[in-house]
Amino acid sequence: MAPRGERVAIIGAGHTRFGALPDGPRALLGEAVREAVQSVDRGLGPHDVQEGFLATLGFGGWQIGNSSAVLAEATGLVGVPITRVENACASGGYAVRAAVRALQGGSRDVALVAGVEKMTDSPNARRRYWLGVSGDTEWERSSGLTFAGVYGLLASRYADERPRTREALTRVAVKNHENGARNPKAHLRKVVRPEEVDASPRVADPLGLYDCCPVSDGAAALLLAREEVARRYTDTPVLLRGVGAASDTLAIQERPSLLEFGASRAAAHEAYERAGWAPDRVQAAEVHDCFTIAELLALEDLGLAPPLGAIDLTLSGATAKGGALPINPDGGLKAKGHPIGTTGVSQLFELFHQLRGTADARQIAGVERALAHNVGGSGASATVTLVERG
Amino acid sequence: MAPRGERVAIIGAGHTRFGALPDGPRALLGEAVREAVQSVDRGLGPHDVQEGFLATLGFGGWQIGNSSAVLAEATGLVGVPITRVENACASGGYAVRAAVRALQGGSRDVALVAGVEKMTDSPNARRRYWLGVSGDTEWERSSGLTFAGVYGLLASRYADERPRTREALTRVAVKNHENGARNPKAHLRKVVRPEEVDASPRVADPLGLYDCCPVSDGAAALLLAREEVARRYTDTPVLLRGVGAASDTLAIQERPSLLEFGASRAAAHEAYERAGWAPDRVQAAEVHDCFTIAELLALEDLGLAPPLGAIDLTLSGATAKGGALPINPDGGLKAKGHPIGTTGVSQLFELFHQLRGTADARQIAGVERALAHNVGGSGASATVTLVERG
Repeated sequence: MAPRGERVAIIGAGHTRFGALPDGPRALLGEAVREAVQSVDRGLGPHDVQEGFLATLGFGGWQIGNSSAVLAEATGLVGVPITRVENACASGGYAVRAAVRALQGGSRDVALVAGVEKMTDSPNARRRYWLGVSGDTEWERSSGLTFAGVYGLLASRYADERPRTREALTRVAVKNHENGARNPKAHLRKVVRPEEVDASPRVADPLGLYDCCPVSDGAAALLLAREEVARRYTDTPVLLRGVGAASDTLAIQERPSLLEFGASRAAAHEAYERAGWAPDRVQAAEVHDCFTIAELLALEDLGLAPPLGAIDLTLSGATAKGGALPINPDGGLKAKGHPIGTTGVSQLFELFHQLRGTADARQIAGVERALAHNVGGSGASATVTLVERG
Repeated sequence: MAPRGERVAIIGAGHTRFGALPDGPRALLGEAVREAVQSVDRGLGPHDVQEGFLATLGFGGWQIGNSSAVLAEATGLVGVPITRVENACASGGYAVRAAVRALQGGSRDVALVAGVEKMTDSPNARRRYWLGVSGDTEWERSSGLTFAGVYGLLASRYADERPRTREALTRVAVKNHENGARNPKAHLRKVVRPEEVDASPRVADPLGLYDCCPVSDGAAALLLAREEVARRYTDTPVLLRGVGAASDTLAIQERPSLLEFGASRAAAHEAYERAGWAPDRVQAAEVHDCFTIAELLALEDLGLAPPLGAIDLTLSGATAKGGALPINPDGGLKAKGHPIGTTGVSQLFELFHQLRGTADARQIAGVERALAHNVGGSGASATVTLVERG
């Protein structure tokens, strides 16, 4: 099949450090957008950005409503329409998709997508409030089931089906920490040994501390352009080949299986179809590993491993940096951090650099086609984005 | 100029009553969407809706994050990608615009847009929380300036420039209550006399109780289709001729004038340009009258009255039901109610019926072209949508 694609390209990308940061959302957005603008090879004119999207869940518990105006103020875009998109942890992926559609509408040439979250140093009540709000309220939250609890259940279910599940989870943690240690923008830049992972305090059995992503602050930004105009800005755009998205029930109890995220599967199906790709075209991927078990489930949902085959793929070393299918070269949510609304944007920041060959110590040799996978809540929504070197 | 248009049509619309309602957001969404589906003349197939957008600010303080999944569950759309859009009180207008762009992308034929808010019976802390969050936090909220306070300042400033401001504000209230009394779905279905308006308790001088919209629950839904397929569903689609949107600073102190909303002006400019219309093509309008002064400002920002000319237009009776330019025939935010995320969707529900001649007691004779105007916060964002009988 000939590639069909979305006729939209990434022409610039920016990213703050992730971590427990002193700055608030306004400053974080300013920093990420500034870096994105500076990354555009031939520069952006002052009126080139005609549309903006802001992905955020809680905006630091500060400007929870109407925060799109803060993005306008922080970036000199007052006047430009900016839309806040919120689909929990998939806000970033959905915001990118909304920008793609805006550009396809034909009345805009260049759009900005920015994600931000300020999760540390928030008043406790608010922090609990806007973290918890993304889980199912009626069944899961009301019975005390946290996100770690949900993913612990999924991991237990997976372990019922397959031996060596715990060993593979540990391998995911060790690998993503290794990758994160190479990423100057990662929250957790430390290598962990398998014994440390296995001995870490239990959070929600069988998941321990090193199976969980940290609570992070940070922002990321992308500049997207219609493919027709992208080469005005750069000789090396990153082309969006296929964008897919889907939803699922909020509560996991409503689903036919705990070993599949229907939203991820449907989003992947759509993205592959739009790109004209089979899964074996993917050479590297950023997947939504909020917990280590999520990386295993993602590999299967995305067609990158056969059903219950993610364990073998992981234990074979294929998903490590030097392997046949590197996964989460930036450290993933696990080690890079997971500032909720930022994550889907951050994943494409990484792939932008990987495909342009500018990922420094994280660079995967010769990568030309890659996938980003972003999940909302415990699978209530998902996006899959396929990118290719231009 | 020949009409250019957006190549997108409204093929169905639904609406709950607005008011202090017993139902929660899930039931309200279900009711509005069911009515929208039933309103499609030749019916919708079970898989026809391929994309959804949810406009909400607080979702009743219940599922504040990830609420798009609840829309999927409430409407049988599990699997379909649904995006939550939040731009404060302009969430509805922005969600409609996002749906238009999604359809223009070409991969979807029919999209659902639903708005919902459950504002009464919320725990007080939360209610304050998610109502207040849309004002500017750093300057206005921190100094105790509420939305009524902001609009009171704008009204005072307007009154400095023009005599008879208070008289015109009263006329807006009386007119919109008259219109609301004809609307079976309005929150406040009562006629008020000018003396009652003038004698009502001051809220933020010069604004009194009858200058302010009520706090309402309610949902509304629209079904949009690409123009190419719209006539499969109905012989009387309502065509979207031009959609415009823009942003402004969050705090009013940052703006050059208190008598103009720059976002409304820029959004109107874009919408008129996309439609190929001059303002005199507009025969009726739904404008964002969260406070009576907002209707006067809107008429001027939208080019429907000359600068400082909204008072004369209003006092002439032109904006009443039988006048030359009826404004807010459904009662407006003032009398119909203002469930934040629902409002921009609700305005187009009204125009859908007006342009199809199905607005019952509210029907404006012979109306073929109309405008909807939706504002976020105190002007931080705005959308303008121009519609025409198909």
